[in-house]
Amino acid sequence: MQQKLISPRKLPGFWELEPEKQIGFNDMLRKIESVFVNNSFYPLDTPVLELSEILLAKSGGEIDKEVYAFSKGDTSMCLRYDFTVPLARFVAANYNNLEFPFKRYQIGKNYRGEKPQKGRWREFYQCDADIIGNEELPLVADAECVKLYDECFTSLGFDVVVEVSNRNLLYGLIEDCKDLEKANDIIVLLDKFDKIGEENLIAGLKGLGIANTGIKKYIEAIKIKGEIEDVKTKLMKLSKNETYLKAISELEELDTYLKAYSCTNYVFNVGIIRGHNYYTGTVFEAYLKNYRSFGAVGGGGRYENLAGYFTDKKLPGVGMSIGLTRLYDLLSQSDLLPKTKQNPFDVYIIPLGDYTTECVEICAQLRKNGIKSEVAYDNKSFKSKMKTADRREIPFVIIVGENEVKSKCYSLKNMSTGEQENLNLEQIISKLK
Amino acid sequence: MQQKLISPRKLPGFWELEPEKQIGFNDMLRKIESVFVNNSFYPLDTPVLELSEILLAKSGGEIDKEVYAFSKGDTSMCLRYDFTVPLARFVAANYNNLEFPFKRYQIGKNYRGEKPQKGRWREFYQCDADIIGNEELPLVADAECVKLYDECFTSLGFDVVVEVSNRNLLYGLIEDCKDLEKANDIIVLLDKFDKIGEENLIAGLKGLGIANTGIKKYIEAIKIKGEIEDVKTKLMKLSKNETYLKAISELEELDTYLKAYSCTNYVFNVGIIRGHNYYTGTVFEAYLKNYRSFGAVGGGGRYENLAGYFTDKKLPGVGMSIGLTRLYDLLSQSDLLPKTKQNPFDVYIIPLGDYTTECVEICAQLRKNGIKSEVAYDNKSFKSKMKTADRREIPFVIIVGENEVKSKCYSLKNMSTGEQENLNLEQIISKLK
Repeated sequence: MQQKLISPRKLPGFWELEPEKQIGFNDMLRKIESVFVNNSFYPLDTPVLELSEILLAKSGGEIDKEVYAFSKGDTSMCLRYDFTVPLARFVAANYNNLEFPFKRYQIGKNYRGEKPQKGRWREFYQCDADIIGNEELPLVADAECVKLYDECFTSLGFDVVVEVSNRNLLYGLIEDCKDLEKANDIIVLLDKFDKIGEENLIAGLKGLGIANTGIKKYIEAIKIKGEIEDVKTKLMKLSKNETYLKAISELEELDTYLKAYSCTNYVFNVGIIRGHNYYTGTVFEAYLKNYRSFGAVGGGGRYENLAGYFTDKKLPGVGMSIGLTRLYDLLSQSDLLPKTKQNPFDVYIIPLGDYTTECVEICAQLRKNGIKSEVAYDNKSFKSKMKTADRREIPFVIIVGENEVKSKCYSLKNMSTGEQENLNLEQIISKLK
Repeated sequence: MQQKLISPRKLPGFWELEPEKQIGFNDMLRKIESVFVNNSFYPLDTPVLELSEILLAKSGGEIDKEVYAFSKGDTSMCLRYDFTVPLARFVAANYNNLEFPFKRYQIGKNYRGEKPQKGRWREFYQCDADIIGNEELPLVADAECVKLYDECFTSLGFDVVVEVSNRNLLYGLIEDCKDLEKANDIIVLLDKFDKIGEENLIAGLKGLGIANTGIKKYIEAIKIKGEIEDVKTKLMKLSKNETYLKAISELEELDTYLKAYSCTNYVFNVGIIRGHNYYTGTVFEAYLKNYRSFGAVGGGGRYENLAGYFTDKKLPGVGMSIGLTRLYDLLSQSDLLPKTKQNPFDVYIIPLGDYTTECVEICAQLRKNGIKSEVAYDNKSFKSKMKTADRREIPFVIIVGENEVKSKCYSLKNMSTGEQENLNLEQIISKLK
């Protein structure tokens, strides 16, 4: 090559796993997908690119600096930054052909041009499951989404706790305290409690001009956490506001459904608020039981109307999400990844001499019997191939040399014990199966 | 909503399936993936976006009008249009950490801003499997790629025929006829034989100034098709050129390995040329046995050097590809799609009265036993829910009313026979399992 070489690098902040690790990542992804499928969610696979007019409907077409937006010809388009707007577009466009409640999952990559930093990726996998109703959607749907976490994390080998609340508890209190005009600012501040602590929260609320009685009530509320009976008793002392009482009864109903689903890994926590403004009822966040310091590994909630920008049909929904790239990253950093095979095969068939064809025949038979096998067909020396098998920790090696080909009995070597046996193909298959 | 509604549409030429069909599509994708995994290919999942400098290395940075390219900040980037350049980038960057031959598969979406037309999509799934060697790669790797088609299409329920050739046959003849300077133009023309017919091909070759003896030889060659012995006999009559003879012996060796893999669904066809210039040896195309009019449903071949733009290591490779979106599209248009379930569940549990909680309990038990179930928890009438079950052709309905809840015996209705039985939960589970 005479030309100057180009340094082979990927875009900064973009995720790419080594092939050995990708096996484990895919395994996690499939497990989550199986849970969605077993719970009767339909798959949906929307395009990665959407019209800017659609994707930026919420912001009136204004391009958030984190969104990857560009034009091709006359068309302005964006890379999706989540699955919610594409879902809204899809449901609005296919309203007449869908059965409601419409349950769909989507697993795939989303794009946000954030500053690359630890734990923040510009391309990342999300696993979303949402249930959309037509005009109305019973609360049992919220319970379905909450208990998906239980199943997903159990299948991944982790204990999860879903912390559940209802945003209308806080709205009820805010109504009570006549702070409605400042509702959003209050909610945003309360959401920061865990991060900034009580003192700063009080100062912040004072700064908004909230009366002391209000401040006391809000803080008392967001500290309430526990089983339904306990939480209800504590909540009932704070207000008799109508919105508030309805939220309490929704928590109770949700609790009934969760118990009916035999879901036990949840707790009510009024401090769960979720930043997004579009949540309008149940909200929840999922935490790993023994690793709460990871922060939420998933979250979601109920929204009043999915697709108001695209249709005048009222489409209430509830959804849950798991940030798989972030989860994998956290587990990896803490050395908590489920142990998976590093090699895509268990048996390495090594020719001793010019016996590649014979090795291929054996390999084909083993694979047919579901035994993951590979022929060492590169031109390295026999010794070097044995070393490879050792270094890669491949459990079994079959050696195929002149004697083996003549006798049709092959040396099967157990690489961990060093044990070696001469067996015919049938015996090898029955031994390895 | 007071605001003006935005029409919920996707970008033209972008693929999106209805959820019922997506079930079948995913099923096909998983089957292909299983074949790759069972044949010991590593998964690789490169980013959708790449640096323009990398993705456009081949064209010296010039942006092909079909590539989606844009800038964000100072960075010029593109959406990938295939998996080959990202693979080259990956292997060059990770050369020291990879075991060679490196076998990887990648299944995902690629992007080409072609004019939308029948069968052409701007976002489409490809399923690629490649084997990369370090400095050298034995021919058995080519056989592995060819026989993957056999396994993939068998698992999809179709008979495939892979038509195999070696580009050096034509290069040998071109050397023989001293047409080397016009080699590319000749190859491009010969590749069009099927489309333009013999008369136009002759005229075209004459137009290039090729002598009649050459024209005769080229056309005679590309008509040769059959089993190895027959093809060899015919080829041996045309030339004794060294490149040419080496290509024949490679076909023979390939044939030996394919037989060793018990692969039978292939034929040699010297008319298989493949447009891409980077193929340098074995080339192949896959056709559905009974639907050759679909054209090739996959193709690939051997390339001398994968990553010459990124490294001075010589990395020969061989790869195969299936265009899954195109395949699905063709099968769908001809009503040939494998029949799959349209519903994500088989049992619909309908409350007759206020018994959603009891239905949820039953549903949880059924799902635990692997029976795909769903509660009809929307607020429609009982009658309307029964109609839904009928319209959606859900095989079984369980009715849960007052008597059922009291007796803990539920009506299980077989929707195709109309048969109805009163069974307890245990009986229902053992019946449906």
